Amino acid sequence: MTHNLENTMAVLERTPRALDALLWGLPDAWTKTNEGGATFTAQDVIAHLVHGERADWVARARMILEYGESKTFARFDRMGHVKESEGKSLGELLDEFARLRAANVVELRSWKLGKAELEKRGRHPGFGTVTLSELLATWAVHDMTHLHQISRILAHQYRELVGPWSVYLGVLQCQGHSAAPVELHSNG
Amino acid sequence: MTHNLENTMAVLERTPRALDALLWGLPDAWTKTNEGGATFTAQDVIAHLVHGERADWVARARMILEYGESKTFARFDRMGHVKESEGKSLGELLDEFARLRAANVVELRSWKLGKAELEKRGRHPGFGTVTLSELLATWAVHDMTHLHQISRILAHQYRELVGPWSVYLGVLQCQGHSAAPVELHSNG
Repeated sequence: MTHNLENTMAVLERTPRALDALLWGLPDAWTKTNEGGATFTAQDVIAHLVHGERADWVARARMILEYGESKTFARFDRMGHVKESEGKSLGELLDEFARLRAANVVELRSWKLGKAELEKRGRHPGFGTVTLSELLATWAVHDMTHLHQISRILAHQYRELVGPWSVYLGVLQCQGHSAAPVELHSNG
Repeated sequence: MTHNLENTMAVLERTPRALDALLWGLPDAWTKTNEGGATFTAQDVIAHLVHGERADWVARARMILEYGESKTFARFDRMGHVKESEGKSLGELLDEFARLRAANVVELRSWKLGKAELEKRGRHPGFGTVTLSELLATWAVHDMTHLHQISRILAHQYRELVGPWSVYLGVLQCQGHSAAPVELHSNG
């Protein structure tokens, strides 16, 4: 399968608007509740996405383009959003995510990446060699992982209220496939 | 847990806008592809949601309010959307879903349901006795089940492209928890 970068950017551009439409103004009973224990609230997920826009995707892409495999990516701080988002409202975080993402997509587009650039290699601290194409595809799928997680967090709040229908609702059977190490640390 | 109907309606009102923001204008490579076999495309999911607005939720709620347990719900036709949506574009289906949902929420709100009405009972063809509260809570969680499904369908298209990151992306581990019988037949 060939990586069509326009398709990737089509998802990257839409995620902030989709999350805004879903979460903006939604009562706290949905957005400030989690799945129990140390799991994320929907608001935590948005804070994590904001942190990724600042610290992860574009920074790593630039590193591949400038240094190739000669420099290893910094490890992504999995809880890096906690301090950064302190005191911010969900609305502020959604706006911040939209603004950062839009700027990042403009930058990505300005690079006018072709097939040769997409094949460029970088060095991931855990995986070793990765390509720019893989990094950018992961950026889009990472959005979907967190949309998937948010739909599950919201559904969880009504687990008891749906009565017998719970057996028919796929999202209520979802265990996250991961616990913290996978979904929260989705960039490695 | 008490059922707060305003919270339920807050989700019901937002789902069409969220799906529109995510899917409107997205390339066919995302929206007309599925997870293999007889699984749904994102467009199929929207058609299924449209059918539910016409044939399921409000019709069943009305039946509970008018007939209580003396009438059994009609079985929901799990593939009822196929004929109904033939020849329609994704954009048309998204608009139709938004229009029907808005009208249904207006109707739901006009009923001014209190605690007593929410406890009213109806008869489900599979489960037997259910309450109006359970039906309405399920309506909202059903939205989340399908948002969860759509995020998974989209992610699936990039399964090969993300390379080693696939192990870190929760959505790529999701099996749907269900296969067709659960997610596609989520109303029983």
